[in-house]
Parts: sequence; C-alpha cells; structure tokens
Amino acid sequence: MKIATTIAEVRAQVREWKQQGLTVGLVPTMGYLHEGHASLVKTSVQQCDRTVASVFLNPTQFGPGEDLETYPRDFEHDCALLTECGCDMVFHPEVSEMYPDGFATFVEVQSEMPRQLCGKTRPIHFRGVCTVVSKLFNIVTPDKAFFGQKDAQQLAIIRRMVLDLSMGIEIVGCPIIREADGLAKSSRNTYLSAEERKAALVLSRAVKLGQELVRNGEKNADAIVNAMRALIEQEPLARIDYVSAVDGLTMLPVHEINGGELIAMAVYIGKTRLIDNFSVEG
Amino acid sequence: MKIATTIAEVRAQVREWKQQGLTVGLVPTMGYLHEGHASLVKTSVQQCDRTVASVFLNPTQFGPGEDLETYPRDFEHDCALLTECGCDMVFHPEVSEMYPDGFATFVEVQSEMPRQLCGKTRPIHFRGVCTVVSKLFNIVTPDKAFFGQKDAQQLAIIRRMVLDLSMGIEIVGCPIIREADGLAKSSRNTYLSAEERKAALVLSRAVKLGQELVRNGEKNADAIVNAMRALIEQEPLARIDYVSAVDGLTMLPVHEINGGELIAMAVYIGKTRLIDNFSVEG
Repeated sequence: MKIATTIAEVRAQVREWKQQGLTVGLVPTMGYLHEGHASLVKTSVQQCDRTVASVFLNPTQFGPGEDLETYPRDFEHDCALLTECGCDMVFHPEVSEMYPDGFATFVEVQSEMPRQLCGKTRPIHFRGVCTVVSKLFNIVTPDKAFFGQKDAQQLAIIRRMVLDLSMGIEIVGCPIIREADGLAKSSRNTYLSAEERKAALVLSRAVKLGQELVRNGEKNADAIVNAMRALIEQEPLARIDYVSAVDGLTMLPVHEINGGELIAMAVYIGKTRLIDNFSVEG
Repeated sequence: MKIATTIAEVRAQVREWKQQGLTVGLVPTMGYLHEGHASLVKTSVQQCDRTVASVFLNPTQFGPGEDLETYPRDFEHDCALLTECGCDMVFHPEVSEMYPDGFATFVEVQSEMPRQLCGKTRPIHFRGVCTVVSKLFNIVTPDKAFFGQKDAQQLAIIRRMVLDLSMGIEIVGCPIIREADGLAKSSRNTYLSAEERKAALVLSRAVKLGQELVRNGEKNADAIVNAMRALIEQEPLARIDYVSAVDGLTMLPVHEINGGELIAMAVYIGKTRLIDNFSVEG
C-alpha cells in the first residue's frame, strides 16, 4: 500500500490509474481504524478497481471543548489494517497541507438539516465535514465514496451536498458494524472505562427496543422515542444528548412512522459522547 | 458547436474528450456575450484542446432588488459569437437543472474578502458566484477556467476558493476589454441611454488618472483614490458606490502603494451600476 502525505502525490497516482481506465473508491476516515472502517474499505475494494483511504483528523469539524486533542491515533495500526483490507493508497496529510495559510472557504448545507440532531450541540461540525470531504473529493476525484450509516446525519448531509453541487460521485452508505454484545464500533469507544463500556450497551439496547416497536407496528414516533429514552434513563452513567425521530432525507422531526425515518441518538457515557441509530425501511 | 442543456450531456461529452487525452477549458458566463467574453473563449481555445462555455443567468448571485429579471439575454447571438471564437460546446441549463428541489448547499469564502468592495452592497453575491462556479467545475471538470479581470474581486475570490478546496483547476485571469473610447465592455452597458453612455466614460477616465498617478510615483493610496473620486464627482449623472485601494490578494484596504494592489470602483450611471479597476504591478 502506497502512503501519500501530499496532495500532489495523490493526484499523480490517481491520474495514472485513470489513464489506465481504472475506477477509484474513496474511504474518508479520521484514523484509529476499527472493523467499521474495514468494512467500508472492503466494500470499496469489491466495487472499485483501486481504493484510497484518507486518515486525517480534521480540525474544522471539532468545536471548542470537543476532543480534537485527545482523539486517539495509531497510524501504524491503521496502515496494517488498510493493507489487510486491500487498500491501494492511504492519504495521510498534515493539517498545513489541507489548510493553507489564509484558508477561508467552506462548503456548507445552509438549511435546518445540519442544525438537527448532532448539529444542536455541534453547530460547526457538519460545515467542517462537508468542507473536508469536498477537498478530499477534489483531490482524489473518486468514482464512489463510502460512508458508514453509524454517522447517519453525516451521510444524509453528504448526499445532499453531492446532489446540490453536482459532484458526480456515487455515495455508498454501509451498515453499522457492532461488537459481539451490540455496541456500535467507534474510535471513541477507547475512551470508556470497563464500567462505562458496560453502561454503553444502553445505546444498542435502545436501538433494539426501537426496532422491535417498529416491527410490532408502532406508528407513533414519539412513543418509540419515549420508550427508548426511558430505557436509557435507567442507566446511571448515561446522560441523553438527544433521542429523535426524523425524516431520513431532510433530518426534520417527524411524529409518525411511515417508512424512511431515521431514529437517532447521542448519549454521554461518563464524558464520552456516543451515537447510534436505526433507519425504518421504506 | 454542441449545445448542451443537461448536466448529463456535458459529462458524457467531456468524458469522451478526456478518454482521448484532450484538455478542457471552461469559460463561465451569464450570457449576452461581448468582446470581453470572446477574448476569454479565444484564450481558452489557444490554451486547451477543447473549450466549454456556460451561459447561465445564475439567480443565487443576485440579491433582492438587483437586475436578475431585466438582465439582457440573447442566446442566439451568444451561440453565433461562441461558434466564431472556436468554442466546442455551450452549456445552457435551466435554473431547475442547476438548482434541484431542496437545494441548500453553498460554497462560501467566509472571511472579510467577499465583504469588501462589491460585497458591501451585494452581501450574497460572491456566495452565489462561488457556488455556481463550483458546480460548473464539478460538471465540466476543466483543466483551466478563464475569468475576466474586470471582475477583479470575483477573480481573487475564485482563486482563494480553488486553493482552499484543492480544486486542481488552473485559473487564468484575462485583461479587461474596452470600447474604443475606453468604457470597459459589460453586458450591463446595454442599460445606458445615449447621454449615460457618454457619462459612463468617467470610470475609465478615473482608471487612467489613477494609473498615471501610480506611474508618476504616487505612493499614497488615499491620494490616488481621492483624485479618482474628485474626477468622477464632476460628472452629474455619476453616483459613486465605492472607489477603493485594496490588497490584490486579500481585498483588504491599503493606504500605501507597494505593488500588487487593486484600485477598484463601482459607480452608478443613472440606475446602472458599472465597475472598473486596475491593478498595480508587483
């Protein structure tokens, strides 16, 4: 696997591939990779001739007081995992390579969409995500890009951005990968103490409860959300940021289940903020 | 010359060209083309294997009360001129093709740069410009794009955007094209009555005066601006929006001439807002 640290290196390699008529898949990541990322890379390797992963802890998507400084890193392990998955190139730039002096241009979905759910407590988060993903798209010019459904709001916003700006890239959403006991894989799980790790199971248990209610025909979104909240509130180490039912495309609140909704949550376990969700088919 | 009205048509044609190893130049326009646009197209034809011009009156760069509705149009004449200049394809989409239902994503330089000069009275203008130019870049994927130096602030902002978002497109700035008597070519010159047309010469006369002062060694930017203002104020049909000296890269005000400055103006002649400028070498 080739390791590129500059934009120029990535462009040169991708140009060579494109001249050979090869298709390119991109998996953007912030590093500290786990099986969730691995599943994205494997899907890209299946669907595209060549796969590029980016490992870049993007400062513009972190707000003041968030965990930019403490976010875990292990580039050596990341490279081992990417190689194992069949990734062809990893792009691992310095912050200065991505954000030149005087940087001021942002890509932003300027609607209610990025202000819902995680946007309520993370007001600049999705602006940072859209900006860095746009840059990665411009650098790698992939045919397809792969994102996890665990970050469901991010996935919906990126789909909106790609449509709005005519980016000509196919966005592939991939299923949430979970630990054996149900906890959704996340780089932030490493923050959890043993006790918190157990408590963190309330998120996936709430997802299961919500899915069961939907399966049993519950059409009242508020009833589902309230049942999930009640379950989470039984866990003393858990503090709910939000549990919400929204339209799967617009991220706007819904009160009725008709298919296509997203039921999403963010919950603090101790000081660690975790997210989980499920989508209603339709 | 091929006329494309859909994004899909443009992509298909450009893909074919790229498979043949041909380079592509883009000239974005709002139509009602004049010799200024012609010079951009001719430059692209010289520098690139294939040239695409867009003719799209972009609503997102017009504010309330501006001249979106009255902006002149003559697509037949535009096509004749583009054909004559050697343009290979014109992209002439409907608004609905460019702005799908629920459109909400903008590309925006979020610094003082777009708030200076024209941005003081046109607060959303450059957000609209950056957004539509980004879309055109994504649709056409040109190697180079050509912009006139008459819109000097636009050119500087687009250069900033391309650098910040790693767009990988070379931006070529082309000189202002003027009528024989000095008036900078503009689609909006058509708004002028015969009397106003004469009065409009104050802009290019002010440019000449400013250039002469610089040539004579004047280093005080305010003195240059004040002399230009005094000249314009002698014209009863003229009303100054701004005459300003700014840094050529950041668009921030300067008080001293050291090379690299932009001296720019916007002046109402009757109800018609015209712009002109010159750059100080260095």
